[in-house]
Amino acid sequence: MRDNVLVVHGGGPTAVLNASLYGVLLEARESGAVGAVYGAIGGSEGILKERFLNLSRFPEEELKKLLATPGTAIGSSRYALEEEDYKAMEAIFRKHHIRYVLFNGGNGTMDACGKLVRALGSDSDIRVAGIPKTIDNDIGITDHTPGYGSAARYIARTTAEIGADVKSLPIHVCILEAMGRNAGWITAASALARKKHGDAPHLIYLPERPFREEEFLADVKELYDRLGGVVVVASEGLKDESGKPVVPPIFQTGRSVYYGDVGAYLAELVIKKLGIKARSEKPGLCGRASISLQSPVDREEAVLAGREALKAAMEGCTGIMIGFARREQEKYEVCPIRIPVEQVMLTERTVPASYINNRGNDVTDAFVSWCRPLTGEEIPDYIDFQEIYRERREDRE
Amino acid sequence: MRDNVLVVHGGGPTAVLNASLYGVLLEARESGAVGAVYGAIGGSEGILKERFLNLSRFPEEELKKLLATPGTAIGSSRYALEEEDYKAMEAIFRKHHIRYVLFNGGNGTMDACGKLVRALGSDSDIRVAGIPKTIDNDIGITDHTPGYGSAARYIARTTAEIGADVKSLPIHVCILEAMGRNAGWITAASALARKKHGDAPHLIYLPERPFREEEFLADVKELYDRLGGVVVVASEGLKDESGKPVVPPIFQTGRSVYYGDVGAYLAELVIKKLGIKARSEKPGLCGRASISLQSPVDREEAVLAGREALKAAMEGCTGIMIGFARREQEKYEVCPIRIPVEQVMLTERTVPASYINNRGNDVTDAFVSWCRPLTGEEIPDYIDFQEIYRERREDRE
Repeated sequence: MRDNVLVVHGGGPTAVLNASLYGVLLEARESGAVGAVYGAIGGSEGILKERFLNLSRFPEEELKKLLATPGTAIGSSRYALEEEDYKAMEAIFRKHHIRYVLFNGGNGTMDACGKLVRALGSDSDIRVAGIPKTIDNDIGITDHTPGYGSAARYIARTTAEIGADVKSLPIHVCILEAMGRNAGWITAASALARKKHGDAPHLIYLPERPFREEEFLADVKELYDRLGGVVVVASEGLKDESGKPVVPPIFQTGRSVYYGDVGAYLAELVIKKLGIKARSEKPGLCGRASISLQSPVDREEAVLAGREALKAAMEGCTGIMIGFARREQEKYEVCPIRIPVEQVMLTERTVPASYINNRGNDVTDAFVSWCRPLTGEEIPDYIDFQEIYRERREDRE
Repeated sequence: MRDNVLVVHGGGPTAVLNASLYGVLLEARESGAVGAVYGAIGGSEGILKERFLNLSRFPEEELKKLLATPGTAIGSSRYALEEEDYKAMEAIFRKHHIRYVLFNGGNGTMDACGKLVRALGSDSDIRVAGIPKTIDNDIGITDHTPGYGSAARYIARTTAEIGADVKSLPIHVCILEAMGRNAGWITAASALARKKHGDAPHLIYLPERPFREEEFLADVKELYDRLGGVVVVASEGLKDESGKPVVPPIFQTGRSVYYGDVGAYLAELVIKKLGIKARSEKPGLCGRASISLQSPVDREEAVLAGREALKAAMEGCTGIMIGFARREQEKYEVCPIRIPVEQVMLTERTVPASYINNRGNDVTDAFVSWCRPLTGEEIPDYIDFQEIYRERREDRE
């Protein structure tokens, strides 16, 4: 009887989460060295309830759909595992001949990964490895995380498109709200929309910097007077100087706090304080579920992360998470690395100061250079006859 | 000296507005029968200020970008033309040897079209034709309007993707707000996301029917208990029985009224009244600016509408708008028709009763059959192992 593999998803999905699952299946098949690949249906709860589906039974043409399926094909959960849960798992794994346990998720999931290794004992023959995944890109050590490149491509493209839309009728301010409550990586990626000076986004606000309403209003006013249409990208998690959310919680039920939308709040501020027409957009979940704006680089790396996690486990590693290191050279290239999970269990990586400008209303060129390759594309060239008309006076008729 | 063509854009853009402009340029070049094609920079104000750019001078590879440029490449305006404005136009057209004036826009723009024809006199040698354009699909007579097919594809795909996302973590209700304040055509198109029974969207609310909070909450509750995750698509313009917007205006400045977001309002309602976790997404402008989700059928028809408008004007027609009639046959096929602008000047076509279900929380199959070909695609097949696990009990390991 050959050793089986179990894949578990934790937390919210990304546009390429299922691509990593495909990577595991690919590696299992090509290596020929393992038994079945099981999916834990419904996340870590699925382990405890032994809800396992044998994915190796499905034909390749079905499995290929994982590359272009949003969400998580095997479900997920936010169930908080207790110490006895970890202890109960070993017997379950043994019962199903599971020797390789791969957790795909963010910080919280890596925490579970580490705790499971501790419960099993690090010399156990059952190996546990982490596949990183988050649109927020807030896992430490690794250069970046699968899921982020697609979220970055989505916000960059969307910002460019909204920039073209707002220019059409130069009469307003548009606030685009981006996901990432504590880390501004997605918000920052909107800067990739710019092809030339004056392009959207005109202002970028990350949660890493205190948000100052007075400065924001002054900046919007100045840009509006100069450009006509202004596109602002703001993180859903903006906080003021004292660290309080800019939009106060609307209400609380049980453990959950519900905040109002930052975009709507800022748009209202612009209308009321500046008397300028404004609106807000909040694509929200659309940005992490968009298959048409999946980054091809991100998808490829997500597959690779799945393969590498299984490979590491088969080679005897346990308690590691796959990460990516960037080779220092002209062309973008990464190599997979194995990071001890203890190093990422409790960290939350935010955008460093070197990637944010002094005024705190934009990102730096260093950020743009770092981020661009992850999206796997250049923003397309749009044609703008309005601009040509303004700039080439001699060439009008 | 050959007769020149002038193209004018009015109102907000669509994903294929510039494709119609490309169609005019293509027809002008292929016919070889006209002089230059000018773009009025900044809409109808551009006519009065004689801001004309000769688009025929640009090389084909530049013009081709119009097919994939969001917004409007020549600008637009919401300027309300006065009677003396129409009177002033004739001299301007004569000065620039403009004989063919093509207005691209919605109801309001067709109104301007008709008024200009009256001012010129219907036996004038200057011909005026309309190219229809609106994401809202609210222009009368024509089967549908360029711009709508792409907006429909966007909302359908987005609903399908959010459906997959919400299923991943079956713990909440997601409200997706769709554009269209008085006409629910875009909201309705979310129904195309369904591949099988139980798929998102689970509830659809159009502005054509009074919105009843009690029924909404009862429907959400029932679906949540049965399915776990619920996706609701709601029009931004929902009104109650008395015709008042469901979300009261936040405030008013000058002529503009600012409403709160319907999606956010409904999500709050679900949390407060049902105690179920909920969130809302409002892609808003993203939906009319998305080039990656442009409908190929829509783009093609937008090009055709541009070509046909110029063709009609060259053939001596004036005061007409190009529309589409659908041939009654298995395969989707349309033919362009010429509609007198008086017939569309003051109409606002809403979704007919036959396309809405009795309870007012969904659309009918007749609507889906009518709408699907306009999006130019079938929603892709996603793979859902959670569902397979539930349904094929015998097949798990």
